[in-house]
Amino acid sequence: MTLIERFMLDVSTVVDKALDELLPAADTEPTRLHEAMRWSMFAGGKRIRPGVMFAAGRTFGADEKLLVRTAAAIEMIHTFSLIHDDLPAMDDDDLRRGRETCHKKFDEATAILAGDALLAMAFEVVACDENLSPELRLKLVSQIASASGTPTGMVAGQQLDLEAEGQTITIDELENIHARKTGALISVSAIAGAMVAGASSAEVAAVELYASKIGLLFQITDDLLDVTQPTETLGKTAGKDAMAEKATYPGHFGIDATREMADKVRREAAAALDSIDCDTGLLLEFADLIADRSK
Amino acid sequence: MTLIERFMLDVSTVVDKALDELLPAADTEPTRLHEAMRWSMFAGGKRIRPGVMFAAGRTFGADEKLLVRTAAAIEMIHTFSLIHDDLPAMDDDDLRRGRETCHKKFDEATAILAGDALLAMAFEVVACDENLSPELRLKLVSQIASASGTPTGMVAGQQLDLEAEGQTITIDELENIHARKTGALISVSAIAGAMVAGASSAEVAAVELYASKIGLLFQITDDLLDVTQPTETLGKTAGKDAMAEKATYPGHFGIDATREMADKVRREAAAALDSIDCDTGLLLEFADLIADRSK
Repeated sequence: MTLIERFMLDVSTVVDKALDELLPAADTEPTRLHEAMRWSMFAGGKRIRPGVMFAAGRTFGADEKLLVRTAAAIEMIHTFSLIHDDLPAMDDDDLRRGRETCHKKFDEATAILAGDALLAMAFEVVACDENLSPELRLKLVSQIASASGTPTGMVAGQQLDLEAEGQTITIDELENIHARKTGALISVSAIAGAMVAGASSAEVAAVELYASKIGLLFQITDDLLDVTQPTETLGKTAGKDAMAEKATYPGHFGIDATREMADKVRREAAAALDSIDCDTGLLLEFADLIADRSK
Repeated sequence: MTLIERFMLDVSTVVDKALDELLPAADTEPTRLHEAMRWSMFAGGKRIRPGVMFAAGRTFGADEKLLVRTAAAIEMIHTFSLIHDDLPAMDDDDLRRGRETCHKKFDEATAILAGDALLAMAFEVVACDENLSPELRLKLVSQIASASGTPTGMVAGQQLDLEAEGQTITIDELENIHARKTGALISVSAIAGAMVAGASSAEVAAVELYASKIGLLFQITDDLLDVTQPTETLGKTAGKDAMAEKATYPGHFGIDATREMADKVRREAAAALDSIDCDTGLLLEFADLIADRSK
């Protein structure tokens, strides 16, 4: 196991423990709702957002205790978005991470409500984190809310993505969609880590630039995996984006040019860290992890 | 126009102006999402929650400026819940306040996302309200999130309500559902008004008890209207609860006994205010408004 794999395993363990404590128990009413929330929260997610938040936080010396609840909250929001994106009215996916999506395992109404509840709970978790100063908690709530919603956040990105299906769009439009749909929440995770650690505004800005590259890198490799890996490896239906006539990087540029693009973006992510005085090894390794993943 | 009708008109005007400023313009991307959010936000809602927040706030001397953004945020959350409750997978309603529901006017995906975006935006609005101290904003975020989600908030209530359809439930179970589905957000509105005004904890507790009675009163009169008023007056499909085999007060006790119950709850709401030293006339009139409404 490489150093970064070990790091991600540690982050997952800590964040999953916090999530287990924060989420209502599966045997409290309404049990079906709480089972559904837990079904999707503990479905083998890679914990990419907590990972980048911890990596940025550790880079500037933040303690685990300061990072864990906000990381858990952000992962709740990510999970909310997966549950809603998988719904029949949206991407209509039956399989996620190798098992049934929330609305298939439970039902559509429960899935919609499980997502809603996770979104609301995330803000409660951050607002109540007494390890952080009131001013910092407020900044986190507002920035995370902004990254989740509209006009520049995740919900806006999903809307634009749905509207682009079957349309011919430019590469700028494609990047605009991904910056909101995937990039915004990854960026705010990295920024949150740096902010919690008390990084300077110049350092936070460097991390933000790094994170925007990581978000793009994540999407490019995601698109590549969709066309190069079989369903069994992905744990979700392979080739689905192409079938849905979604705009993708390989669809636009071809597989080889997309691979070159991924390399270029990885180097840009690294370059964004040049101005930071601390050891940025962890963030560099995190970029490699995103680029080299197989699912 | 009575005094309380004038008051409600003033509150609606002020809150609607704030909502118009806070929501993304309909001509900014993604336009369809923003149009959908505005379609449901400005659909002739009665602004009950802003009303009770302002009534509680004014009772303890709070300025409009301190109340308006939190009231707008709570109304965003109420509207999010209406949009999602109307979806085909939930109550499947085509008509709301006399016009098409969000998913009928737009489409299901857009309606789901419009609700999601309103929920996220609400917390951003409260967190960024610089008229309030950081500590107060955090209390508001956490209490409003708790009242919106699960296990004791609105989302939990909707889940329980859906599960109860076609089931025989006790009156305690019915009250438990409504306390979460409708009561929690009405209560937190009243509490927020008192908190923003700097009311003492005893005063906030009195307002909380009053608000719990108002929430119950609202639900009882809502059930009564469903069986006594025609669709044209209600602006939504009359008799729908009975058709869906939903548990209702008139279904359980009959119309006459339910009317007596409403009177009793109204008196209890008034009694809850006895311990408060300020003039509680506005809150008393607000209770009458809820009890005597015709839609």
